[in-house]
Amino acid sequence: MEFSSKFLENAVYEISQLPGIGKRTALRLALHLLKQPEEQTSRLSGALENLRSQIKFCKNCHNISDVELCEICSNPKRDTTLVCVVEDIRDVMAIENTGQYRGLYHVLGGKISPMECVGPQDLTISSLVDKVKNGMVNELIFALSSTMEGDTTNFYIFKQLEGLSVKTSTIARGIAVGDELEYADEVTLGRSILNRIPFENSMKAS
Amino acid sequence: MEFSSKFLENAVYEISQLPGIGKRTALRLALHLLKQPEEQTSRLSGALENLRSQIKFCKNCHNISDVELCEICSNPKRDTTLVCVVEDIRDVMAIENTGQYRGLYHVLGGKISPMECVGPQDLTISSLVDKVKNGMVNELIFALSSTMEGDTTNFYIFKQLEGLSVKTSTIARGIAVGDELEYADEVTLGRSILNRIPFENSMKAS
Repeated sequence: MEFSSKFLENAVYEISQLPGIGKRTALRLALHLLKQPEEQTSRLSGALENLRSQIKFCKNCHNISDVELCEICSNPKRDTTLVCVVEDIRDVMAIENTGQYRGLYHVLGGKISPMECVGPQDLTISSLVDKVKNGMVNELIFALSSTMEGDTTNFYIFKQLEGLSVKTSTIARGIAVGDELEYADEVTLGRSILNRIPFENSMKAS
Repeated sequence: MEFSSKFLENAVYEISQLPGIGKRTALRLALHLLKQPEEQTSRLSGALENLRSQIKFCKNCHNISDVELCEICSNPKRDTTLVCVVEDIRDVMAIENTGQYRGLYHVLGGKISPMECVGPQDLTISSLVDKVKNGMVNELIFALSSTMEGDTTNFYIFKQLEGLSVKTSTIARGIAVGDELEYADEVTLGRSILNRIPFENSMKAS
């Protein structure tokens, strides 16, 4: 693409560095901004600057936060001995939305993935092991996605915790509530039969 | 969505104001920026600021430019009596890429669209009419898209030019080079038969 303006070319290039946004979409977004009032662009660029420079990570759970200790970790009504291990803030938001969980979180910041050059030292695993060693945790719930990377990460953490007295569990995998059996994939359906639960328990949950 | 950080919430809100980007995509983009080096975000926000504050519009053709008179308008090899009327910079880039056009452009900045509250006064139509009145133009080529808005805009400009001595033409509509007739839509195929050209001319073009 040949641009008649270096400023436009530069903006298009920087926007197209974002994941899933190509040159054409970037040009469309840049032209859209040019048609809008100047304040909109200032607000956008200011918000991005603040996002990167002002944001903190909670010193306990490593979730994104505006303060040193996030709202969840500083909430006295939360069960501090129960810790749910998740990948990032989106998982925290998803679990919080259910309203079913009263423990704390531990945000890893990713999954172990040799393909993307993410090793255990890039995640907050050592801080999690320290928490367990200090006897602050009774039960860890692994809630990473069930991909190869997620399973590897779960297993790595599990190995690190060997010999420490902590209960570990993973969230239940099975047929989604309301789904038809005939459309479920075989792995999920197979697991949901192997890991069946007493009928009385399923009554309690609903 | 409930966010644990006002800075994140603000950034997600501002990103989601862009066309075609919802809250979820905005959150994904914001989290991506947080994982990248801080310079990338500064470069992006700087490029957006510059785009909005530094960019100029060519005083002759109204195309986006870094200088008062754009490269095309200031090129002495261009035919200044031939003007192609287009909607925005993307059309200029598309036509320039063909390498077939040696005249100038006139960028309207949009199309007349009552649905989107765009009237003739929001476009650069009066500047185009002035150019013609000053006798600077021999031929106008309408190259707007063939939608209702495009046709309306063409017709409005055509009416404004009544009584002035200027040749007007529109780009040829027809079956794309390499396309099969059986898959062409009827309107296009019909027009391509009505507006057939002498065979000798088609030999010249290729």
